[in-house]
Amino acid sequence: MPEPRAAVRKMDAYSPPTEGRRDALRLDFNENTVGCSNAVIECLKSTLTADALSIYPEYAEAKRELAEFFGVAEDEILFTNGTDEAIQVLINTYIDDGDEVVLLRPSYAMYRFYAQLAGAAISEVDFSADLSFPLERLLDAIRPSTRAILIANPNNPTGTGIDAASIEPILERAPNAAVLIDEAYFEFSGVTVLPRIAYHPNLFVSRTFSKVYGMAAMRFGCLFSQAGNVNFLHKAQSPYSVNTVAVLAARAAVRDRDYVRDYVCEALAAREIICNGLRDLAIRAYPSQANFILFKAGHRAIPVRDELRRRGVLVRDRSYEIPGAVRVTVGTRAQAHRFLEELRSIW
Amino acid sequence: MPEPRAAVRKMDAYSPPTEGRRDALRLDFNENTVGCSNAVIECLKSTLTADALSIYPEYAEAKRELAEFFGVAEDEILFTNGTDEAIQVLINTYIDDGDEVVLLRPSYAMYRFYAQLAGAAISEVDFSADLSFPLERLLDAIRPSTRAILIANPNNPTGTGIDAASIEPILERAPNAAVLIDEAYFEFSGVTVLPRIAYHPNLFVSRTFSKVYGMAAMRFGCLFSQAGNVNFLHKAQSPYSVNTVAVLAARAAVRDRDYVRDYVCEALAAREIICNGLRDLAIRAYPSQANFILFKAGHRAIPVRDELRRRGVLVRDRSYEIPGAVRVTVGTRAQAHRFLEELRSIW
Repeated sequence: MPEPRAAVRKMDAYSPPTEGRRDALRLDFNENTVGCSNAVIECLKSTLTADALSIYPEYAEAKRELAEFFGVAEDEILFTNGTDEAIQVLINTYIDDGDEVVLLRPSYAMYRFYAQLAGAAISEVDFSADLSFPLERLLDAIRPSTRAILIANPNNPTGTGIDAASIEPILERAPNAAVLIDEAYFEFSGVTVLPRIAYHPNLFVSRTFSKVYGMAAMRFGCLFSQAGNVNFLHKAQSPYSVNTVAVLAARAAVRDRDYVRDYVCEALAAREIICNGLRDLAIRAYPSQANFILFKAGHRAIPVRDELRRRGVLVRDRSYEIPGAVRVTVGTRAQAHRFLEELRSIW
Repeated sequence: MPEPRAAVRKMDAYSPPTEGRRDALRLDFNENTVGCSNAVIECLKSTLTADALSIYPEYAEAKRELAEFFGVAEDEILFTNGTDEAIQVLINTYIDDGDEVVLLRPSYAMYRFYAQLAGAAISEVDFSADLSFPLERLLDAIRPSTRAILIANPNNPTGTGIDAASIEPILERAPNAAVLIDEAYFEFSGVTVLPRIAYHPNLFVSRTFSKVYGMAAMRFGCLFSQAGNVNFLHKAQSPYSVNTVAVLAARAAVRDRDYVRDYVCEALAAREIICNGLRDLAIRAYPSQANFILFKAGHRAIPVRDELRRRGVLVRDRSYEIPGAVRVTVGTRAQAHRFLEELRSIW
């Protein structure tokens, strides 16, 4: 049996994706809880032919359309197989074995995953006790040898964010590092540094179609940076990693602007309902700028998750990162009421 | 601007995928030239709902079904985002910077791509002048320090193959290496070592749905090995790299066995027509076990490709690897006649 690399042997054991979620109220993965726009489905039904599926993906037309949508040039955008591939390509482009990568803790697990896989020297900066962004400590952790800094804004699983202006000193402190701002939940926060790529050659911004767009099944994301960087990212990416169905769907999705606006409105209203409901139960919740809320269930975090699951409501236990914390995805107001009703009955 | 890794700087310049192929007779990428089974389209049209697309992929049921189809255990199969991801995951699992990888030349470009990206020390063994498999030279190139050997069987772009028994000495000579046999064109050759994974802990076999199944747009492949190896491969793979649409399509595709059998029969008959037609034109063609034929157009390779393109027939120039060589994909008998007719008119 061939011996795997030391970096792979050291990685956490593989845990397969959660299964059997279809019939439940899925408040566990921060997906869009009502499904993607019907315009996406109509587009796929009319364009998916036996002939079209047999051809290797083509991206040029879609790149023109999406670059325009995002307000960037065509050579400033890279299509990725979900945000996960954006992280992977960035790490593969900039991180050699032993290179220093700065992460926040807790944050999205795939930053650590790809950094570990590359054999990086990982330095982790803890969020503050109130889960606000630890800007000063992050700035202190940046060294001249720092090669990458990966930040989710808003952050997952905390839901807390940082304003765009506060990202500037990070970019200035780390001129030799690739700084990724992962804006997977941007549509719920309204905070973005995407226009700042013009001014910062070390800035990389990612967006996903797995959250507000309701297309997690299709795996589509975009990574943005200055053209010179995108050229190197391309060299580290396989030519056909993004499937045609996702590309077609993304084009249809961005054309239906009403859908996204309406879903965001609904989710923000639902977020307030859940915040108020938790307060009424005297449960501490952290301020959220995303489509999920982290709350404290204390020693009951895992029992609460399990009891809700028995009642058909899926939430995520995060107590392995933040003692007693449970994360609930925010969907519609009706779903918020359903969640609160079930929570009240077991609390 | 952050400095990319040396391995990335050294890589060949990015060349974007070929575009605008839809309306031509596409004999340039070894795709299925008539499109995937209609059963796949029917399945997608009935299962692609707004709700289904919003959920992160689930693989367990599909894994059971495809493991049974391929005659392996569930823990001996890894789903991959096309064969490209199979190569990437294998390299990421076993190859550290400077590790020795043995490749054949010419062969599928992505072996070299991912090996370079990992910073591997690549050793290349040339195919013989008649493009037969250089077994003795390959065996000589294997050293105790060889960490991976990547072989396409049948090989692309040569079309030539090696019999299953001749792979055994390679596996025996390289007990410490991960030996990948990429069987992307297996259905056309009938030669496979997949059942041999039970006996060789260093054997990895990949299959794709981009060729005979006509699903190149969807990106789906499978990588097989002993369960202990698959467990390590999983650790080096992101959990959601394969999209749900591809998984649904693959399940529908393997159920329609008649479709694959009929297409293979048609392509084998078409291959003979093209071989005979080339012989009538006194053009040298290499014996092929795949759905493509490599032939010698001498100094006219590029003009022939360009002239055929003007007539609506796409073929691939391979003269940068094999002097004067052009590769033509084999589809149906009618397409073979069309290709020969256009070729005759310009020869």
